[in-house]
Amino acid sequence: MPELIAFNRGVPPAESFPKEQIIASAARVIRNEGDHILQYGGPMGYPPLREWIARRFRADERQVIIGQGSLQLLDTFIKTSLLPGERVLIEQPSYDRVLTIFKRAQVALQGFALINGSMQLEQIAFALKAGSIPKAFYVIPDFQNPGGAEMPLETRRGLVELARRYDFLLIEDGAYRHLRYRGEDLPSLYDLDAEHVLHMSSFSKVVSPGMRVGFMVGRPDLISRIADYAENTYINPSHLNQAIIHDFIQRGLLDDHVERLKRMYGERMDHMLDSLEKYMAAYGAWIQPKGGFFAGVFLEGGKKQPEPRALEESGLRLTDGRAFMLEGGENFLRLPFAALTPSRIDEGVRRLAGLLK
Amino acid sequence: MPELIAFNRGVPPAESFPKEQIIASAARVIRNEGDHILQYGGPMGYPPLREWIARRFRADERQVIIGQGSLQLLDTFIKTSLLPGERVLIEQPSYDRVLTIFKRAQVALQGFALINGSMQLEQIAFALKAGSIPKAFYVIPDFQNPGGAEMPLETRRGLVELARRYDFLLIEDGAYRHLRYRGEDLPSLYDLDAEHVLHMSSFSKVVSPGMRVGFMVGRPDLISRIADYAENTYINPSHLNQAIIHDFIQRGLLDDHVERLKRMYGERMDHMLDSLEKYMAAYGAWIQPKGGFFAGVFLEGGKKQPEPRALEESGLRLTDGRAFMLEGGENFLRLPFAALTPSRIDEGVRRLAGLLK
Repeated sequence: MPELIAFNRGVPPAESFPKEQIIASAARVIRNEGDHILQYGGPMGYPPLREWIARRFRADERQVIIGQGSLQLLDTFIKTSLLPGERVLIEQPSYDRVLTIFKRAQVALQGFALINGSMQLEQIAFALKAGSIPKAFYVIPDFQNPGGAEMPLETRRGLVELARRYDFLLIEDGAYRHLRYRGEDLPSLYDLDAEHVLHMSSFSKVVSPGMRVGFMVGRPDLISRIADYAENTYINPSHLNQAIIHDFIQRGLLDDHVERLKRMYGERMDHMLDSLEKYMAAYGAWIQPKGGFFAGVFLEGGKKQPEPRALEESGLRLTDGRAFMLEGGENFLRLPFAALTPSRIDEGVRRLAGLLK
Repeated sequence: MPELIAFNRGVPPAESFPKEQIIASAARVIRNEGDHILQYGGPMGYPPLREWIARRFRADERQVIIGQGSLQLLDTFIKTSLLPGERVLIEQPSYDRVLTIFKRAQVALQGFALINGSMQLEQIAFALKAGSIPKAFYVIPDFQNPGGAEMPLETRRGLVELARRYDFLLIEDGAYRHLRYRGEDLPSLYDLDAEHVLHMSSFSKVVSPGMRVGFMVGRPDLISRIADYAENTYINPSHLNQAIIHDFIQRGLLDDHVERLKRMYGERMDHMLDSLEKYMAAYGAWIQPKGGFFAGVFLEGGKKQPEPRALEESGLRLTDGRAFMLEGGENFLRLPFAALTPSRIDEGVRRLAGLLK
């Protein structure tokens, strides 16, 4: 039995966690601010971290809420601002956990295919013109989960323009935005229009997922509704964890840490792309990601992704591509590279190609 | 303007937080287990703490889930096991945040009055016989929030008997159970019948609320539904915080810490009861709590609780008694004593009596 390779988990590697620095920050904040951060606190989160986020987004503090991960805040946004049956647009493929949350809320989902890493603006405009006006459009413009794509500037501008014209909300998931290994930053949707964009992000990919610190930045009325619901559900998220993150930032460690991650993950991404080129050219197509955690492969020639037999036959754990789609997905594969060493990546892709012969 | 006295917050005092011990535990667990607890984890919580809780409850691990406070788990239980319109029974008065959660879920609430600190079993039996069968009955048997009462053993036995006969679930909130300052422990409802009782509790009152570590113990099918919903909402609660609590316990610190809290809070409770006797005897009645955070006062002779004018006239922050009731409550006052020094308690009750003259 070959050693197992996990091509199914979109997680950072354990070697990326800045343990000693987190220990030092924990000691400092508990000693200096323990009276507050070990007590009940406000539902919107630890004030200094909210202020820091607000400054970064050139926003007001009333526009920032921190929660136990950004997914929890998205769920609460849905519970407070969307009704069953209301229309929500998504990219296809998209983040499987978000699809699950939207489906559970019984909103009417409509998907727009990512073709060569980009949605077709004309197709979206056509649907809107035909009267299919949504309440919200969920997108991951930077290094998309699961496709790896970056939304082109023209699409960003066009989407914001459509959101204004038809008055819907763009929900921008920025989880991977600060993990760019190639090229130059594009403006976020929030940069382009703070009024029509609800930005969600977290410290899971740049510090540690186990801290469970995510946030949302958006219109004060939306944020305030989320805060009320949050307070009546879990009182407040842990200010302790948020204070640790804030101290880590205040000590000037975040930027260097992210630079380290970018070097490590960028190298792994290159290995993934090399391996795909080496083994998979005959079986499918993929876009060239410039950051994030994933490369997304669309198999061609009627090939189907080999989950679940991959595990038994080749010790390869995959995610069923259909999880990222409203329909179809049998030919889609999400290949995460951030938590695997170059040799594991090469070996994993080699095994995958073997299964597709 | 007199110095403000907060008779409105049911929180532990900051001086109760074992800061240095939490710092030491944080350093240990991050150093030794950082690879796991800083990573994504399972939705049911940090396994060693789940095991510890399971042992304490003589339960199986599959019966234990940990969340960001027990309130969040209660909300998720409701979302996964109760439908709008289904009947839920409660004590009156009861914990205001739980009433808010039940109301939001649009269940049909029915209250049974606590008279001299106890519900009348015959009244409950009569309602059940008349066909008013609930899905669940939420109670706080130990040092009730807000009344301070302890449910008599006979009522515990009778309630469990009724839950069996009519097949409904008792939701037992044990938040204050381990803070007893007088008398001997009574069996919990969970001790009496693990099958018909869902027990919720947390480390908020015995270690720190800011850690946000609460848990539920109950039937595996109920717990598993909560876990699925939790995973699809927030992936997992912070195992870091749970690991800190677990390390604190493993180092043998919890029992001594709780003993310290009991001495501090017990003294404050005695001062509260002395002050009530001294100033309030003419205006109302209260039960003698034996633990917890609160004394509940029912004003008599048509007196109404003086919130909100108490703040302006006497610098006294109170909670509107109606928040704890489905109807009525104008004559009810919840007086928390755990976070106030004896002199503040005396002064607060003196001012309160002045307002009732």
